[in-house]
Amino acid sequence: MQTLADVGEKAAVAAILGRLKSSTAVGPGDDAAAIEVGGRYVVASTDIVSRLAHLPGAMAPRDIGWFVAAVNLSDVAAMGARPLGVLLSFCLPRDYLLRDLEAIMEGAQECALSVGTEILGGDTKEGRELVIAGTALGEVGKERVLLRRGARKGDLLAVTGTMGLASAGFAAVTNGINAPEAADAFMRPRPRIREGMALSASGAATSAMDVTDGLAYSVHELSRQSGVHFIVDWEAIPVRPEVLRIAMAVDGSVEDMVLHYGGDYELLFTIRPDMLDAVKGALGDEFSVIGRAEGSENVLMRGGQVSQLESRGYEHFMR
Amino acid sequence: MQTLADVGEKAAVAAILGRLKSSTAVGPGDDAAAIEVGGRYVVASTDIVSRLAHLPGAMAPRDIGWFVAAVNLSDVAAMGARPLGVLLSFCLPRDYLLRDLEAIMEGAQECALSVGTEILGGDTKEGRELVIAGTALGEVGKERVLLRRGARKGDLLAVTGTMGLASAGFAAVTNGINAPEAADAFMRPRPRIREGMALSASGAATSAMDVTDGLAYSVHELSRQSGVHFIVDWEAIPVRPEVLRIAMAVDGSVEDMVLHYGGDYELLFTIRPDMLDAVKGALGDEFSVIGRAEGSENVLMRGGQVSQLESRGYEHFMR
Repeated sequence: MQTLADVGEKAAVAAILGRLKSSTAVGPGDDAAAIEVGGRYVVASTDIVSRLAHLPGAMAPRDIGWFVAAVNLSDVAAMGARPLGVLLSFCLPRDYLLRDLEAIMEGAQECALSVGTEILGGDTKEGRELVIAGTALGEVGKERVLLRRGARKGDLLAVTGTMGLASAGFAAVTNGINAPEAADAFMRPRPRIREGMALSASGAATSAMDVTDGLAYSVHELSRQSGVHFIVDWEAIPVRPEVLRIAMAVDGSVEDMVLHYGGDYELLFTIRPDMLDAVKGALGDEFSVIGRAEGSENVLMRGGQVSQLESRGYEHFMR
Repeated sequence: MQTLADVGEKAAVAAILGRLKSSTAVGPGDDAAAIEVGGRYVVASTDIVSRLAHLPGAMAPRDIGWFVAAVNLSDVAAMGARPLGVLLSFCLPRDYLLRDLEAIMEGAQECALSVGTEILGGDTKEGRELVIAGTALGEVGKERVLLRRGARKGDLLAVTGTMGLASAGFAAVTNGINAPEAADAFMRPRPRIREGMALSASGAATSAMDVTDGLAYSVHELSRQSGVHFIVDWEAIPVRPEVLRIAMAVDGSVEDMVLHYGGDYELLFTIRPDMLDAVKGALGDEFSVIGRAEGSENVLMRGGQVSQLESRGYEHFMR
């Protein structure tokens, strides 16, 4: 019989969510579910992290708290929603220090406050290892919600921030390289709430998601859900020099860090080409156009050469 | 330094939630948080279960799914809210069978459908043991929300269903006693959504909570939050004969099963004495008056004798 290690995380999620016949406006498969309440959408998303899968020893309890709140709020940002709050539940070993649990909560609250929201409540139970599940809630006007589907041929493809800094930070932390900015990008991602809300208000975005599992995987996901394909321009992808320095130091691949590893929690979105100025008005310099919806497969253009964009990204259970 | 085993679950939750300065209408400390959206309250509650702490080997994956959905929906019921959906996130060992994960989802969906709602989405990640976190969402009119605070002197104290059957079921399952009805009460608690909504609509309830951690603990909790005390009439507490039979078979205490162990997920609530008929109209025979708010401490009346009602209930981390 098949185990999760045989099929991988994404197939496992697809198998369980595929069985749900959801009647909600936006059901399983987007960054968050959306439910109509009082004429608006309430969006809700859940993410779970375990010490084994996500939390290297270098992360202090306060960082862990920030991280868990951030990855959950990032899904609210990807829907263009205003955050309403975060719920956290913990499984903890019985010898866990109360002081460390308090520090996790402080880090989570710090992240929530940084985007104008707060921790609403939680639950703690005993378990063999530290596991933290978060749920973030938000609200957005029904006609303003940003979904993974909706990109059209000719739309521009864009990202907020830069790519690869979080995975460079992970490489730096695990290899003992001093790179505080990159380490911070990995351990304390900033949920792009302000940018998501501004994009939603601009009316210029046709689709959006957050880049949890790497840029390439996310481009393929927008492609699948919208039914269009993308040309991605390698030279246009914003990458900090720090990423090159760390990649060289650990003998790693810049391309893998930028395209195939996750953790940046930036927003990937498409915009109507005639609305580029509206997006500039909304986001300022905080985004880059990196491609366009055209053609019949997802490709990477680099140094004048065109190659297939591999869809591989970070997958739990498989190694 | 203090560990969670030193302070216990309730002190740990109090320590972390006490640090939150929440601006929401109903923040940490009630069954669910409540946030205003479009003039109504959205309520949200999270509960986490682990194989270690909650899920005896006798529970099949389908039962586990039902159980997790039920304990989360029970909190929505306790607020008098209409359920909007449930999110589930999983930590799973990599050798976990895909078939078993699918069965968990089916059980959860079955429970959600039984109260007119559904599973909205989820997340899976790798962990050392099975951990499932759920979040249930609901909505209720602002003036109709049921809170733990609000009971007044003279109010009647009441419960839905019967007490002790779930803990008797746990005792039966772990001791190999054939008691299908009790086992079902333990493994497949029914979230009292219909009853919570009817109570809310009746306008007769002054406070409410669900009986997760035992009747005695719950009475003390309503007492603390409302600032009144209760006389509980032992003879009026509805107990099925099955509980007596199982308690005798395992040489256990009926009083502990009825008062101090949890798992019944019934609603404990207070009603204005002049509104008893309205509650009968709303709930029919599905509830029992078991006491009254009066006096200056929480007491148990039994065979004409009055004794202190111990506040001990189920506590994680402590043994």
